[in-house]
Parts: sequence; structure tokens; C-alpha cells
Amino acid sequence: MTSVHIREVGPRDGFQNEPETIATADKIRLINALGRAGFTRIEVASFVRPDVIPQLSDGVEVLRGIEVPDSVDRMVLVPNSKGLDNALAVRELFAEVALFVSASQTHNRRNINRTVEETMADVKVMGKRIVADDLRFCAVIATSFGCPYEGRVPMDRVLGLAEEFAEAGATEIGFGDTTGMCNPAYASKFFTAAIERLRGAEVTAHFHNTRGQGLANAYAALQAGCTSFESSFGELGGCPVPAGSTGNIATEDLVGMFHEMGVDTGLDLDAVIDAARMAQTVLGRKLTSHSIVAGPVRWYPSPSEENQ
Amino acid sequence: MTSVHIREVGPRDGFQNEPETIATADKIRLINALGRAGFTRIEVASFVRPDVIPQLSDGVEVLRGIEVPDSVDRMVLVPNSKGLDNALAVRELFAEVALFVSASQTHNRRNINRTVEETMADVKVMGKRIVADDLRFCAVIATSFGCPYEGRVPMDRVLGLAEEFAEAGATEIGFGDTTGMCNPAYASKFFTAAIERLRGAEVTAHFHNTRGQGLANAYAALQAGCTSFESSFGELGGCPVPAGSTGNIATEDLVGMFHEMGVDTGLDLDAVIDAARMAQTVLGRKLTSHSIVAGPVRWYPSPSEENQ
Repeated sequence: MTSVHIREVGPRDGFQNEPETIATADKIRLINALGRAGFTRIEVASFVRPDVIPQLSDGVEVLRGIEVPDSVDRMVLVPNSKGLDNALAVRELFAEVALFVSASQTHNRRNINRTVEETMADVKVMGKRIVADDLRFCAVIATSFGCPYEGRVPMDRVLGLAEEFAEAGATEIGFGDTTGMCNPAYASKFFTAAIERLRGAEVTAHFHNTRGQGLANAYAALQAGCTSFESSFGELGGCPVPAGSTGNIATEDLVGMFHEMGVDTGLDLDAVIDAARMAQTVLGRKLTSHSIVAGPVRWYPSPSEENQ
Repeated sequence: MTSVHIREVGPRDGFQNEPETIATADKIRLINALGRAGFTRIEVASFVRPDVIPQLSDGVEVLRGIEVPDSVDRMVLVPNSKGLDNALAVRELFAEVALFVSASQTHNRRNINRTVEETMADVKVMGKRIVADDLRFCAVIATSFGCPYEGRVPMDRVLGLAEEFAEAGATEIGFGDTTGMCNPAYASKFFTAAIERLRGAEVTAHFHNTRGQGLANAYAALQAGCTSFESSFGELGGCPVPAGSTGNIATEDLVGMFHEMGVDTGLDLDAVIDAARMAQTVLGRKLTSHSIVAGPVRWYPSPSEENQ
């Protein structure tokens, strides 16, 4: 039976997109609920400037407050050397550090006001520190499947950046569909090439459901051999481009699809849905995941034996 | 380039699930908008008892009122011989008649209070009349991928019913995922077998997005050789089981996926989205399709030439 890893990214990627900052105690409650669902990887916090992303300014408190099993690898996202300094000051609170770049120049400039080359030069320096500190170094390449300003980013360029990350010490490379521009045919081609070219590194798919194709892309990536995914409970997260659109694929929809297909995730789907419903209550609005309404596939034994 | 047919089923399958009956004039406006989007197949009405489904009691008025190109094949759904009598009385208003059965006994009984065998006996009689009247006879098999009361319905049973329909004169067999229990692995296996076994008939996939997997199933069916699909603009439609869940896949999300993959639908995606947004305005609530918010994939030429 195929088995996959799913990293839950809602507590970082989802919470940071909420218009109202979620109370620290609520964040902790929600992450604890995710821990009960069996996740072994959760992106918990980021070390970004609190004036830029106030929604995540309580990252250290959250990391200190959560009570999740030791089997959960906690990931933090770090944007630059200053963020890494702050993260390493509390190094005992997490196991994985994610560094990121956008594959397209325009998106990278608009996101972090630097060229791709400047970012990658920093990555090399930061990567050494992460590895030296015995932490797992994970890379994230945004706009891997297309940029709203530049269109499709050449696959060779994206995979070249992935190789640079691997050389800098990253053992996992995540490819992000930042504004939902991937399609299943391209996902199939891309992950076949990525897995071939990045032997030795873990290749992770991070799809968005911007136009409803997120699970189709995940299925295509799985077929191409990808066994590592990122998703967000409740379909939390969004993206400013296009305005108002949803972001990440919903963890509970992804887990449901995998389980129905006989793919092992190690997760308790009912508990994932419980956590997503709890998020819905905390946020006070209807979330866009489908399984949060429908629940897992279930049926009721019937007296009819004619179909047996 | 692969090309597919998409039948828009919102005006029947979607409108009948609205709690408030839509005004006839609004239905006509919406169907006319669909006609402008380039559909060649639209399910427009059903000849069911108005006391059972009052939402569709104005079917004949709608059929008479719409102004769509002659290239649009209008379909009507007929539940029984009485319905067929009523339909054939206005035979000049449509081109295709759909007859249906549920693959599972329990669902068929709960839906139309008859056994599968009783329904199929009627189908044979009705099919003759449809064919004799020079109309296209399309079959719909509900709960093809699972029944909420009986679980997975054996594939052999479903395909056996499909063969009975084909023998009765149906030239198109649609397989409905009534409560969203299909997954991409099963869709792949099912449509491979169905296309093999039903040579000569058109095999149509009708997926629901109950748990978010609808487009993944459509992609898997396409890969298996299926080129005929049904979907509903705005993701209109629902299902009483599980309570509150969405029904059909959204036409605009399906069309967007196909176009991005280079699959020709003959449709104008912007015009489909316009029609879905018009439905949102008419219904006065936020619909659940993703492309209705995000729009089609677009980008803005940027001054950066570094990615070229």
C-alpha cells in the first residue's frame, strides 16, 4: 500500500491570512487538536517581522504552549537572517526550518523586495547555520507552477533553484502553487521530472485550490511518484491574487481522497474534520472545505441483499 | 488535441435543489446566458410531478421561452410513462430524453419507490417510444460509484444495467456519483471497464464534488478515455445525503481545468463564469464554485525578462 506524508500548514499558512488575529490560546487549542489527529509534521509558526504579519507575532508563545506528541516535527518558516537569529534563540522548540524563494523574479521582488539571486545567496549562508544546528532544512519554492505577473515559470528554472537548495543542505524541497496556476497534466510532468532530478531529496507538493483543481493536481502528483504533501485544515489560507480567492487545499478533503484510494496517511480523518470544525467555530465563519460539511464517506448497512 | 463534450445540467439538476423556486423569467435568462457560452448540450427541464418537485413545474414554459442557438441539444429528464406522455406532447421542444435508475435497490426504492427490475422493465417500454419518436435516448445510472445505504455497488452490476439501457436503445449512458463516493483510483478503473464494455454507446461521467474530489475524478476519467461529462454552473445542486452537502462539480472549474490542460471544450470560460455569477445574483447567496471567485488563470505581462 502506498503511504504519504502530509504536513499540516494551517497554523502558519492559514492563520497568517486571517483578517483578525486569532487569540494565542485558540491557536494552541487548534494545534493540539491537530496533534490528536496524528500529524507528524505541522508548520507552527514563522519568524517574520510582527509589524509585517501581526497575525503570527505570538509564534514563540504558541511553540511553547502547544502540547503535541513528541512524534510531531514542528516547522517554522524563516524569511531572512534576522528571522533565523530569532528562531535559533529558541532552537529547542522546533525540528524543521523552512526557507523560501519565489521562482519568478517579479513575485520574489513583490514578496520580499529582493532578487532571486540575492535570496539564494542568503539561503546558502542560512542553510549552513540550520544544518550546523542539527535542524532539518526544508526549502519552499513559491510560484513553481506559474506566476500571476510572469506566467508559466520554466520548469528548468524551478528545478535549478531546487538543486541549489539541495546543494545548500535542504533535504526536502516543496513546490508551491502560490496562486493556483497548476493543472493535473502539468503536475504529472513536473513531479516526474522533479523526482528524477532531485534524487536524495524529499519532493513535496504544495497545491492551492484557487480554481478547484487542487485535489486533481495532488492525484496527478501522487501518480508521478510524489508521496509528500502540504495542506491546510478547513481550507484555511488565501492569497491576495486573485483577490478573495482561497489558498491551500483542504487537509480533510486530501486525506479523504487518499483514504478512499487506499493510500495510507497515518491520520484519523474524523479527528482532522473535528479540528477543522473547531477552526470554523473559532473564526466564526463558514470555511470552504467540502468534507467539513459532508464528513467522511459512510454508509448504513441496509436490509437489501440483492446487491451482495 | 483531445476534445470533450460537457453537458450543462444546472437548469435541471441545480435549479431543482434550490429551496426557493426560481422565477421562470430568471431561469430563461440564465439558460440564455449558458447558450451564449457555447454549450451544445443543456439539461433544461424534467417532467416530474409538480407536487413532488415544484421547483421545476414550469418546464414547458422554460423550454418555450429560452432563446439558444439551434446547435444546443436540449435534454429533458423523464421519471416514468406518465412523464413521458407529458414530454412527448411537446416533443418539438427538445432533442434528448434522459431516463434514470439507481444502481442500488435501496436508493432506487427511496427515490422512486420501485425496485430496480420494475424500473428497468419500464425503461424498455419507454425507450422504444423515445427512439420511435426520433429523439436521442440517454440513460442515467445513479449511485454508480456507491450508495449511502449499501456502500460500493459492484461494478459488474452497474455495467450490466448500462448494457440493458444500451439494448433498450440508449446511445449515451451517464454514470452518476449521486452522493460523492467515487475516488480517482476507482474512476480510472471504472471508466476503463465501462468504455471497453459499452462499445458503440457514449459513456458520460457525472461526478459530484461532495468531498472536494470531483475534478480529480474527472481527470482520472479523462485519462481512462472518457470524453463526455456533466457539470453544473456555479456548483449548483445538492443532495440530501449527507445533509447540506454540495452536489455537482462546477462547470467553470471543470472547463478551467480542461482548458489549462489543453483539452478543448468548445466553451467560452469567461461566459460560463458570467452565467455562474448571474446565478449567484439571482439566488442571492454565495455559490461554492472556486472559479466564480478567482476567475480564469490570467497573468499580467511584466517588465522582467529574466525568466524568459
